[in-house]
Amino acid sequence: MSKELVFGHQNPDTDAIVAAKAFSYLQNKLGYDTEAVALGEPNAETQFALKHFNEPAPRVIEQAGNEVDAVMLVDHNEPQQSVSDLADLTVTHVVDHHRIANFNTAQPLWYTARPVGCSSTIILDLFKENGIDIPANLAGLMLSAIISDTLLLKSPTTTPADEKAVKELAQIADVDYETYGLEMLKAGTDLASKSDLELVDGDAKSFELGGKQVRVGQVNTVDLDDVFSRQDALETVMKDENDAKGYDIFLLLATNILNSNSELLVVGEPKDKVEAAFGKKLNDQNRMSLPGVVSRKKQVVPPLTDAFA
Amino acid sequence: MSKELVFGHQNPDTDAIVAAKAFSYLQNKLGYDTEAVALGEPNAETQFALKHFNEPAPRVIEQAGNEVDAVMLVDHNEPQQSVSDLADLTVTHVVDHHRIANFNTAQPLWYTARPVGCSSTIILDLFKENGIDIPANLAGLMLSAIISDTLLLKSPTTTPADEKAVKELAQIADVDYETYGLEMLKAGTDLASKSDLELVDGDAKSFELGGKQVRVGQVNTVDLDDVFSRQDALETVMKDENDAKGYDIFLLLATNILNSNSELLVVGEPKDKVEAAFGKKLNDQNRMSLPGVVSRKKQVVPPLTDAFA
Repeated sequence: MSKELVFGHQNPDTDAIVAAKAFSYLQNKLGYDTEAVALGEPNAETQFALKHFNEPAPRVIEQAGNEVDAVMLVDHNEPQQSVSDLADLTVTHVVDHHRIANFNTAQPLWYTARPVGCSSTIILDLFKENGIDIPANLAGLMLSAIISDTLLLKSPTTTPADEKAVKELAQIADVDYETYGLEMLKAGTDLASKSDLELVDGDAKSFELGGKQVRVGQVNTVDLDDVFSRQDALETVMKDENDAKGYDIFLLLATNILNSNSELLVVGEPKDKVEAAFGKKLNDQNRMSLPGVVSRKKQVVPPLTDAFA
Repeated sequence: MSKELVFGHQNPDTDAIVAAKAFSYLQNKLGYDTEAVALGEPNAETQFALKHFNEPAPRVIEQAGNEVDAVMLVDHNEPQQSVSDLADLTVTHVVDHHRIANFNTAQPLWYTARPVGCSSTIILDLFKENGIDIPANLAGLMLSAIISDTLLLKSPTTTPADEKAVKELAQIADVDYETYGLEMLKAGTDLASKSDLELVDGDAKSFELGGKQVRVGQVNTVDLDDVFSRQDALETVMKDENDAKGYDIFLLLATNILNSNSELLVVGEPKDKVEAAFGKKLNDQNRMSLPGVVSRKKQVVPPLTDAFA
């Protein structure tokens, strides 16, 4: 069997990195020849988790077709979030917890999607269905991914399956997940060390909505002032990114992980579609507050999809 | 929880009918409120299986939005093979063994695809993963679906998972699957009783390939003469269908289930793409022989996809 690469989305978050490592480990146990790689460097939160569980970061690739013919995707399926040469490759496996959009194959494949909070929650089930044990350090990373995606089980994306998975993985990894989880989340909110571009684009994803190229970034913080004290500079790079990459509009969701409220900053057009999506006006600083909104996937992309349709 | 409808593709074959019944049964055991329905009447083979295992045919629907907001798809995902008002509905679950094409959702969902010979093979695994027992008559139907899709485990789409599933289901249903299977397949080849339209379109599926609307029908027989003694009349209805439904080209694959060879009849354009797909010329009767070809999914659609691309 030819070697395959396993990777998560561009601008990888903790789940994108960890799910690739976990799924690659599982597939190798099942007889495949795979390597977990990444479409970008791990962010500060992921680095904290990798260091804590003494695991190396995956190798970063720019394209895959120079190494392999076939790939496995985790934590994404939309081509514009994937490796640049995806169209030249055969996707044999997908494990994901997002909507399916613009994902087309010529051949049947393995596709496991479930509406849960984290890809690593699904992968835990796949380990169990196949009767494969999870090493303690990998369990610690999978735990980290679920804590990251669900903001310590507080996001509305959290399901009973995620809660169950966190408890099972914490036991295998032998950690107090609440203490460890808050430490890890805080490690990801050191915004002072991030450039303006890293802040707005470090976790951003592209969506094609009603023919418009919509870029949506998200940044976690323990103090919204840490973001908006830099608003002028952030708007400048968002506008530059729109011009350079052909985005019509750039949204930055700044999320306070302590009280689960967000503030949205918008650069580009059509702004009226964003206002329609959330049923409120942007203020004169191109911002709106979104109390209780913490999930891009569940609380931001669906209303945008409807408003842009 | 609101009621959902579960159904397979238009022009249902045995798997489309049976997988809907089996997945609906499983989901109801898991706490959902579902009803298995169908997008067409069961064919002669399916009727034989339903009668043998004393199970009713599912109710036939034309649209779903007048009854429910959400649906579960089995044995298909491509919208043009699904219910006419699919765009107005939320798809919450898919179980399928085909390529993924033009299938887009606004929300995360349950999607279980595996590259095996039959949807019912996947559903057997889902029963086992959830620890739910399969009643004997339902096991008999699922066995029938796998026999139908794999031509008694002889099609190149057959995988070790299908072979294992057939043996497990035969035990639950308490049938000799080889004797029963040949009987069932032969029940589906009584072509004399079929109208010309039923013969060419009864099992046909639409594919959008390189911007062309391609219709591909398949008919099983124990004697190719039973099909081609009617060629003039079949060509007339294929041309009429192209004109009426806007297909660019109509392909009819007539498959001899005893020796696993097929003969392809083509009406419409571009014929040169079909010739390119299979690397041979159509004869002066617009036909070509395809020895060893029995699987539309694995041996016909992929080369067409490449040639039309």
